[in-house]
Amino acid sequence: MRMRNKPWAKEKMMEYPQYVIQNPEEHRGKWKELFEKEAPLHIEIGTGKGRFITEMAKAHPDTNFIGIELSDNVLVSALDRLIEAEVPNLKLLNVNAKNLPQYFEEGEVDRIYLNFSDPWPKTRHEKRRLTYKDFLALYESILKPNGEIHFKTDNQGLFEYSLVSFSHYGLLLNYVSLDLHNSGMEGNIMTEYEEKFSNKGNRIYRCEAQFPDGQRA
Amino acid sequence: MRMRNKPWAKEKMMEYPQYVIQNPEEHRGKWKELFEKEAPLHIEIGTGKGRFITEMAKAHPDTNFIGIELSDNVLVSALDRLIEAEVPNLKLLNVNAKNLPQYFEEGEVDRIYLNFSDPWPKTRHEKRRLTYKDFLALYESILKPNGEIHFKTDNQGLFEYSLVSFSHYGLLLNYVSLDLHNSGMEGNIMTEYEEKFSNKGNRIYRCEAQFPDGQRA
Ligand SMILES: C[S@@+](CC[C@H](N)C(=O)[O-])C[C@H]1O[C@@H](n2cnc3c(N)ncnc32)[C@H](O)[C@@H]1O
Ligand SMILES: C[S@@+](CC[C@H](N)C(=O)[O-])C[C@H]1O[C@@H](n2cnc3c(N)ncnc32)[C@H](O)[C@@H]1O
Repeated sequence: MRMRNKPWAKEKMMEYPQYVIQNPEEHRGKWKELFEKEAPLHIEIGTGKGRFITEMAKAHPDTNFIGIELSDNVLVSALDRLIEAEVPNLKLLNVNAKNLPQYFEEGEVDRIYLNFSDPWPKTRHEKRRLTYKDFLALYESILKPNGEIHFKTDNQGLFEYSLVSFSHYGLLLNYVSLDLHNSGMEGNIMTEYEEKFSNKGNRIYRCEAQFPDGQRA
Repeated sequence: MRMRNKPWAKEKMMEYPQYVIQNPEEHRGKWKELFEKEAPLHIEIGTGKGRFITEMAKAHPDTNFIGIELSDNVLVSALDRLIEAEVPNLKLLNVNAKNLPQYFEEGEVDRIYLNFSDPWPKTRHEKRRLTYKDFLALYESILKPNGEIHFKTDNQGLFEYSLVSFSHYGLLLNYVSLDLHNSGMEGNIMTEYEEKFSNKGNRIYRCEAQFPDGQRA
């Protein structure tokens, strides 16, 4: 996301430490203590401006959510939404997904959402794709056995790549839609990118993939 | 395929026993003896009028091909093509894929092509889809370990279903294209249905799935 630089973003986030959690490594293994309810934990990686995760938190009060976003410039918009929504079951983290195991214990997370992840179309950038095998290994290390990845994108190349990458990692494909908005799926919550690209006429792809319950690799 | 009934179709096929193999169960385990060259064996299930398999046989003289088609009405057009093409590496079978293990020995087949298989969109007809798990078990029982299924269709629902079905059966997805004709794939040979439906503007989907080399289920 290209945005004006917002030098005040970091400062603003620090004013709301109940929403944008500072020192997340200190909560490793103890995230449930931070939420009002003991509930399954779903995290979104690359939350962007936060519409998806905020609306999900409103629609699913019996699930706890954490939105993870690298860019403070972008996350500050998600913070604005959260201040407005005042939901108790959503927290935000301004961190890099590369370091997930520093913030979450093995088995602490129930589900991971990836929405409109950066496609990195050049082969030499494959390792940066959030569905590259090294990222899948990070996700596996923090998810429960049988934990799921729910992935949406309008990017054909990234979706094709990700199906193959999931399969080779040993994930089970439980659901695939090649045209989400004409699939009759109920309760879909659009992300900012989803609205923008579907308005342009792009199809939206979606899948659900599940880690096996065997021993970890 | 809706066609006029051709009462002479069966008779014509019997006039060309070198092309449409009669009593295929007698060749079980011995298909290589029927071909000029010892070469990998690729079969297509639901060959239709035979354009794909005939053109494949011409383009790949070092592979042996068998086209399998239930309908004599339709297969007779494939026979006409084969009479014209006179290739030594293609045979046709007028049989039902349900009985594959009667015609092929375990490990006798290297690759299976499924092109534009009947979609059977109603859930209650799931078992008739050629990518239903019972069919996958038949394919596994005649394929070499690591044998592959190459599947093309314009039918979105069947493709979505088949990716999930392959995954749940334990097949590895090696390749997925969600728009074959804009994918840059080289050497694609169009089937009759492929030409018809891509001319209508439909996208063509394609994948390659591979059985694991472990023990058979
Ligand atoms: C294309 S945007 C999509 C935003 C949002 N999910 C949507 O659908 O509207 C991708 C986002 O992922 C974030 N991102 C990329 N790599 C990340 C990483 N390693 N850790 C956390 N966030 C990341 C980017 O900063 C960007 O905001
Ligand atoms: C929709 S047509 C596609 C024909 C061709 N592959 C093409 O792409 O032009 C499907 C074909 O599969 C054949 N078929 C369906 N079930 C079959 C089975 N169990 N065994 C053999 N052929 C079958 C049908 O008779 C029909 O000709």
